[in-house]
Amino acid sequence: MQRIVVLAGGTGGARFLRGLKLAAPEAEITVIGNTGDDIHLFGLKVCPDLDTVMYTLGGGIHEEQGWGRAEETFAVKEELAAYGVGPEWFGLGDRDMATHIVRTQMLAAGYPLSEVTQALCRRWEPGVRLLPMTDDRVETHVLIDDGDTRRAVHFQEYWVRLRAEPEAHAVVPVGADTAGPAPGVLEAIAEADVVLFPPSNPVVSIGTVLAVPGIREAIAAAGVPVVGLSPIVGGAPVRGMADKVLAAVGVEATAAAVAEHYGSGLLDGWLVDTRDADAVGTVETHGIRCRAVPLMMTDPAATAEMAREALDLAAALAADVAP
Amino acid sequence: MQRIVVLAGGTGGARFLRGLKLAAPEAEITVIGNTGDDIHLFGLKVCPDLDTVMYTLGGGIHEEQGWGRAEETFAVKEELAAYGVGPEWFGLGDRDMATHIVRTQMLAAGYPLSEVTQALCRRWEPGVRLLPMTDDRVETHVLIDDGDTRRAVHFQEYWVRLRAEPEAHAVVPVGADTAGPAPGVLEAIAEADVVLFPPSNPVVSIGTVLAVPGIREAIAAAGVPVVGLSPIVGGAPVRGMADKVLAAVGVEATAAAVAEHYGSGLLDGWLVDTRDADAVGTVETHGIRCRAVPLMMTDPAATAEMAREALDLAAALAADVAP
Repeated sequence: MQRIVVLAGGTGGARFLRGLKLAAPEAEITVIGNTGDDIHLFGLKVCPDLDTVMYTLGGGIHEEQGWGRAEETFAVKEELAAYGVGPEWFGLGDRDMATHIVRTQMLAAGYPLSEVTQALCRRWEPGVRLLPMTDDRVETHVLIDDGDTRRAVHFQEYWVRLRAEPEAHAVVPVGADTAGPAPGVLEAIAEADVVLFPPSNPVVSIGTVLAVPGIREAIAAAGVPVVGLSPIVGGAPVRGMADKVLAAVGVEATAAAVAEHYGSGLLDGWLVDTRDADAVGTVETHGIRCRAVPLMMTDPAATAEMAREALDLAAALAADVAP
Repeated sequence: MQRIVVLAGGTGGARFLRGLKLAAPEAEITVIGNTGDDIHLFGLKVCPDLDTVMYTLGGGIHEEQGWGRAEETFAVKEELAAYGVGPEWFGLGDRDMATHIVRTQMLAAGYPLSEVTQALCRRWEPGVRLLPMTDDRVETHVLIDDGDTRRAVHFQEYWVRLRAEPEAHAVVPVGADTAGPAPGVLEAIAEADVVLFPPSNPVVSIGTVLAVPGIREAIAAAGVPVVGLSPIVGGAPVRGMADKVLAAVGVEATAAAVAEHYGSGLLDGWLVDTRDADAVGTVETHGIRCRAVPLMMTDPAATAEMAREALDLAAALAADVAP
C-alpha cells in the first residue's frame, strides 16, 4: 500500500486532498496540518486549517466558501455582538463552535491537540490520518505598519480583518522554534513513499509546518520523492492572497520562484500550470524536475487529475533514483 | 422613592418582578438572585436564575417556557451531541450561549459575578438592580437514592434530567456556609423600605439566598416589613416541583406550612391564594399577618395586582409598627 504524506493548510490543501483520495483510493494518507493560524476566541481554541481539512474530507464543509460548516448559522456571534463583544470580523458559526467547544474542553482536560484531533475525526471520518504539525502552541504573526510604528498582528487578524491589505514586513511563526513535531509526524514522514506539497500557501501554511524543527529535516532525509504543486498560476495566487506573504519573505509571486523558495534540498518535483509552461526550464535549472499540467481545482475530477500528475511525477523521480 | 428588595429564583420570581414593576413603577427595586442552581457546562458558567430574571425583565425571555431565550436555536447543542458530548438534558440554546460566553470570559479575566451581571444587564436594561446573592461559588446539591447507595446530584441534574422524580433526602447549598453576600446585598437590605419573597421555590430559590450567611440576619434586622407570597396554591406548587424539595426539609406542601417554615422571626406578612383562605387563621397563629388574594400569575396585570396586594400588606404592617 502506498503511503503518502501531505503537508496541508486550509482550503487549498483540503480540496487537493479530496482529489488525492479519488486518485489514490487505496493509499494510506497522512496529513500534517498547519496549526499556525490557530486562534483563541471567546475562550475557545480554534484550529481553522485542521477543521477545514476535517470538514472538507468529512462532508461537513461549506462548499462555496471553502471553510466553515455547511448550512451554518450565526446566532452566538450575533448575540455576542449585541453584548458588544467581538471580534466581529471572525466568522465563528454555531455549528463550527461545537467543534471548538469539544476541542477546548479536551485540551483543558489535558489531552494533547493530536489526540483531540483524532477524537474529532472519529465523527468526521475524513479517510486520512490527520495530524497537527505540533501539539505545542505556534501562532503565526504578521509584522505590519500601524501609523508610524510597526506592530505584529495575529495571522487571522491580518488575513481576515485586514484582508492582507497592509504590506507584510515579516511573517513569524511565534513559538515554532521551541515546538516539536506532534506524535506520529516524524514516523509518518520516515515511512512515506512520497511527500506532497499541495497548492497551499507556501509561507503561512506549508512554510509554517516546515518551521517546526525536525519536519523539514525529516522530509529532506526521507529519501523519497517530494513533489509540490504551484499555488501561483499565471503570476497570481489561484486563491487567497499568497502574494502578500510571499513578498514578506522576498519571494516573487511566480510558479518558478516558489519552487526555488522551497529549494532542491527539499523539493524533487514541481508541477506548474500549463499557462506557466515557460517556467519549467527555470525550475529545472534549480535541480527540481518540473512538469506543466492543468492546476485549477475546478472540481473533484480535475483535482484528482492534478493529484495523479503529482503521483506520476513522483513515480518517475523514484524510478530515476532506484538502483 | 420606595426601595424594594426582592429575593428571587427563576421563572416565578422573574414573572413576579414584571408585575411588581407595573405595580410600583417609581420604586427602586433591588433583586437578590439565587445562584445556587448555577452550573458549569462545556466550560461555561451558566446562571439560570439570574438570566431568567434578566431576560424576562429585558424582553428576551421565551414567554411560554419561562426560561431561555425567545426564538432560540440549538445548533451548538445538536452538534455537540453529534460529537457524543452532553449533557443532552440541559437545553443550552445558541442565543443563550452567548450570555454564558461573555460571563465566562469576564470571570476568567477576574471580574466578580456581581460586576459581570451588571455588565450583562447593560444590554438588557431590566429596570431593576440585579445582584447575585454572592460572588462566591454555591452549588445546590440534592441527595437521592441511586440503587442501594445515596448520592448527591447537582440541582439541575435533579430538576431537569430526573424531573425531580427521585425522593429528595436533603437539599444542600454546597459552599453557602463559607460564602459571603455579594457587594451591595447587605446595603440594599439595610436601606430597604420593604422586602418581598415572590412565589419562588422556598427551598432551592429563596432558601438558598437565605443560606448565605448574613442575608437572613440582615433581613430580620432591617426593621421593615417582610412580605411573602405563597408558591403553594390549593396544596400544590403553582409551577415546578416545589413539593419535592419541601418534603426534603420536612415541610408540608401547603400555603400555611411554607409560611411557618420561613417563620415569624423573618416573615411579617404572607399572602395565600383565595382558595387557601382557610389557612389565614393558621398562619396568623404563627405571628405572621396573612391575607387571601388571587395568586395566579396568569398575565402581567394579574401579577401586578398580586404585587400591589403585597405592598399593601407591607404598608399595613408598617403602619402597625410605626410609633
